[in-house]
Amino acid sequence: METVAITMAGFGNVGKAFARLVHHKHAEIMAAYGMNLKIIGISTRSHGSLNLKNGFDLATLSDFTGNFNEQNFPGGTSYRDTLEMISNSQADIFIENSPVNYENGQPAVSYITRALEKGMHAVTANKGPIVHAYAHLQELASQHGKKFLFESTVMDGAPVFSVVREALPVMHIEGFEGILNSCTNLILCRMESGESFEEAVYYAQSIGIAETDPSGDIDGWDAAVKVAALATVLLGYPSTPQDVQRQGIRSITQQDIHAARQAGKRWKLVCQAEKKEDQWLLSVSPKMIDSSSPYFSVDGTSSYILFRSDVLPGLGLLESNPSPDTTAYGMLADLLNIYRKAG
Amino acid sequence: METVAITMAGFGNVGKAFARLVHHKHAEIMAAYGMNLKIIGISTRSHGSLNLKNGFDLATLSDFTGNFNEQNFPGGTSYRDTLEMISNSQADIFIENSPVNYENGQPAVSYITRALEKGMHAVTANKGPIVHAYAHLQELASQHGKKFLFESTVMDGAPVFSVVREALPVMHIEGFEGILNSCTNLILCRMESGESFEEAVYYAQSIGIAETDPSGDIDGWDAAVKVAALATVLLGYPSTPQDVQRQGIRSITQQDIHAARQAGKRWKLVCQAEKKEDQWLLSVSPKMIDSSSPYFSVDGTSSYILFRSDVLPGLGLLESNPSPDTTAYGMLADLLNIYRKAG
Repeated sequence: METVAITMAGFGNVGKAFARLVHHKHAEIMAAYGMNLKIIGISTRSHGSLNLKNGFDLATLSDFTGNFNEQNFPGGTSYRDTLEMISNSQADIFIENSPVNYENGQPAVSYITRALEKGMHAVTANKGPIVHAYAHLQELASQHGKKFLFESTVMDGAPVFSVVREALPVMHIEGFEGILNSCTNLILCRMESGESFEEAVYYAQSIGIAETDPSGDIDGWDAAVKVAALATVLLGYPSTPQDVQRQGIRSITQQDIHAARQAGKRWKLVCQAEKKEDQWLLSVSPKMIDSSSPYFSVDGTSSYILFRSDVLPGLGLLESNPSPDTTAYGMLADLLNIYRKAG
Repeated sequence: METVAITMAGFGNVGKAFARLVHHKHAEIMAAYGMNLKIIGISTRSHGSLNLKNGFDLATLSDFTGNFNEQNFPGGTSYRDTLEMISNSQADIFIENSPVNYENGQPAVSYITRALEKGMHAVTANKGPIVHAYAHLQELASQHGKKFLFESTVMDGAPVFSVVREALPVMHIEGFEGILNSCTNLILCRMESGESFEEAVYYAQSIGIAETDPSGDIDGWDAAVKVAALATVLLGYPSTPQDVQRQGIRSITQQDIHAARQAGKRWKLVCQAEKKEDQWLLSVSPKMIDSSSPYFSVDGTSSYILFRSDVLPGLGLLESNPSPDTTAYGMLADLLNIYRKAG
């Protein structure tokens, strides 16, 4: 029996879902891998940062909504912030789930750096550190004999990175394309049902898919960050969102949508990485596609990616009905993939 | 540097593609995993069975079309048949690629049994052994501390089994559905273009997708074997093709196809595994589907599977443009997945 102590940053929808999943799968993981998972630290932006040496009670944590302080969790130690909590943590693995910063990946990059330096493995659902510090963080992890994984950064829990890493040896990816931003896909679908752009955005905000300022999704930044992350990791082509030719969906009108529907077609925000004259060309742009395309059936918040490679001409992955639970599963899968391989 | 000696049964299109792939990827595998792959034995149905202690020259083998005998390969040792060759082999791994036998999985089951008893790992592209002897062969492999893998049995080289095994820990599959038989999908597509059933079958035979007796595909047996193999391995529900409710495509007329097209729909041979009142219900049957289904864009010899699970509500895998090369890659991936984990 091996105890694996987890410390985590972020306790929003995904963080809570992660705690619930650890609780729900605890006995199964114990039986299958001989691992006793404990959550011993949680830091939040506005509800405190607390270390609890013997671990939080997972049942309590699963529906906890209050503050992480010594009153609510006797025996705990409060810290000023995430960085201080990590610096004082004895955890084996750090689960990072703070909000995305497209500009520079902070503060997540600092958190992960500190965790790796402290000798923890690190798992993130945050795209920022991938496009801004992938090489540095991998190098740091390797120096410390630790792993840094990030499955949930693209397509939630769908195994986009892990299928390549774990299942498909000596495969060289020669390009990819896909629908990677849930929010714009949902908006385009709602517009097909007759809503205006503004109504569709409002709906996406009302169910928590779009942010208060929805421009990160609508202008294609989120999709561009995902393209850059995939190119950095899977093509070995370090890139930032600024390297991606980017056009969002603002220019798509109700008339465009209607005309496409009349012709049996649909508008989709398509991500692409293709090689032209030995140069990678990364792009995000709206495309009108017909029913012969795998994109045609990608509805609502679903997403899709197609890899072209030297050994498999076309391998597509579709994820339907994602939620914070699927993102949480991507992080738990990373954790288990680290430990069950490392032995 | 570790030498991995391979002995293989079957040197048809897939066997040849495997030898070419080993040749093509040899240096890369050496560099990435420190493994020197050698092919030291090849058995065929009508062109001899030969062991060559120091290994076949991979460049020669890549386009070899003659007999495997001592005249063509000086220093080799000829054997009466595959079983005798395996029994006398010093190989580390057995690559099995003999024709499918839907009835009882023989002779492949005997070959794999003998190889595992001799202390080899075993990899097959043959569905027969999975539906007729999966539990037995896994047990035998485990007794000998060896692995038995079979990625290429369903959807060629697409990572159907390995993504579940290697990338998605503690996932419980609650059902699957898909288009798993290339031949019938191609026939239905050709009929949409105006060919009669007979013309479409003839075309499929002419490009090597349908057998001389095409009934195994057309009557849904091949699809049923794949459903049974998936259920056996991924649902832990041992089943044979006879356990699958099976209806082929013989009843689909040109009129049916035309009517569907008029309505913007397509006929597809759909495989399903679903739980009804705690009982697995396995089926293969033609279904008319519309453009909102991921099946709609599955054209020609492409295939698709969707898994429903407790942690990922819907995960689809699409394979397009399969060939003997993709099947060969599935077998090489199995081999590398065995050694890079075990090593």
